[in-house]
Amino acid sequence: MKGGGLVADGYIDGSIRAFLDKLATSSPEPGGGSVAALAAALGAGLVSMVASLTVGKEKYAEVQDDVKALLDRSETVRAALQELVQKDTEVYGAVSEAMKLPRDTDEQKVARDRLMQAALVEAAKVPLAIAEQALTVAELSLTAGEIGNVNAVSDAGVAVLLADAAAQSAALNVKINVGWIQDEAFNDASWSRVQEILVKTAALRVSVMGLTYEKLG
Amino acid sequence: MKGGGLVADGYIDGSIRAFLDKLATSSPEPGGGSVAALAAALGAGLVSMVASLTVGKEKYAEVQDDVKALLDRSETVRAALQELVQKDTEVYGAVSEAMKLPRDTDEQKVARDRLMQAALVEAAKVPLAIAEQALTVAELSLTAGEIGNVNAVSDAGVAVLLADAAAQSAALNVKINVGWIQDEAFNDASWSRVQEILVKTAALRVSVMGLTYEKLG
Repeated sequence: MKGGGLVADGYIDGSIRAFLDKLATSSPEPGGGSVAALAAALGAGLVSMVASLTVGKEKYAEVQDDVKALLDRSETVRAALQELVQKDTEVYGAVSEAMKLPRDTDEQKVARDRLMQAALVEAAKVPLAIAEQALTVAELSLTAGEIGNVNAVSDAGVAVLLADAAAQSAALNVKINVGWIQDEAFNDASWSRVQEILVKTAALRVSVMGLTYEKLG
Repeated sequence: MKGGGLVADGYIDGSIRAFLDKLATSSPEPGGGSVAALAAALGAGLVSMVASLTVGKEKYAEVQDDVKALLDRSETVRAALQELVQKDTEVYGAVSEAMKLPRDTDEQKVARDRLMQAALVEAAKVPLAIAEQALTVAELSLTAGEIGNVNAVSDAGVAVLLADAAAQSAALNVKINVGWIQDEAFNDASWSRVQEILVKTAALRVSVMGLTYEKLG
């Protein structure tokens, strides 16, 4: 294993430069979905940073249990998002594979369609999961801004900005996926859940940014 | 050099995991400034991806010169932002060093103040530069959305979301820095330029997101 390149464990264990370099090419992955997951993971990392800067500080003695719980939650969501960075690059493969299947006979067409639809539903679940986790990051940013070390309040602000951008980015990918999926019930449920998430992250962005500028003075 | 760790060349050549792991700790760097630069770099990478998926495509024959120029510009801004990821972690060091200087005599106090003020002005220029580059990414996202491969239009959308979040994040860091800087003319010029940038990136976000949803149908 050499530093700087992409390694077997996936993009997360490769260098930032390698990820950005490949992103910039015409390669189908990584793309906007992985970037959304990474943006939200950066937000989660910032929430953890605010919590880490509060744990053990006498000035914040009253909120020690809460900041420890916050750190625990932000690290859990960060781990989930790091996995989603990679997962978004893999589900695309299953869709591509299904697309390559033969469609010379009616039976082949039916089989190909069924596999493609299944792969598309699986693929659509990834940006949905990214949006859900991004909402959690936005919620945790509010807690970080409210109870965390005031010297790091701007980091809670950056966290909510990235969480909201990630949720909106994931929504674009959900939108694309539901355009290809025939299961209307799945599509309706997915799209209305995403809309709910976007309303919540937008409101949290306003709250946390207001709180951040207030505390910065 | 081992894979997965931080290497001498800086965070960009270290793994994504190492960056996120250190971000989550109480270490003073990396922090929100580096994350803002990285978010904007991801946006630039996505603009490059949209351009790369358009270069050489017959369907887009009429815009070949423009997409090549777009790719050239987005790769230049991406390189600048990748340097700013690292630079944000380094200017902090100069401020910390100045803070450690002795202040036992009046002369020492004056010398320390002068060095600290100089270091703070240098530090403030980094988030300002990040905001400027993020604005460029937002402008290039609009071009990518307008003339780029329609199959990648959602990536132009993700790019503008990250550019706007990065500009707002950088603004928070400018705000913090100007709170410590005594040069009011520098502070006023910096803050009013940042406000201009935020107005522009917010407007570009609305334009590009509108265009993206329109093209997604």
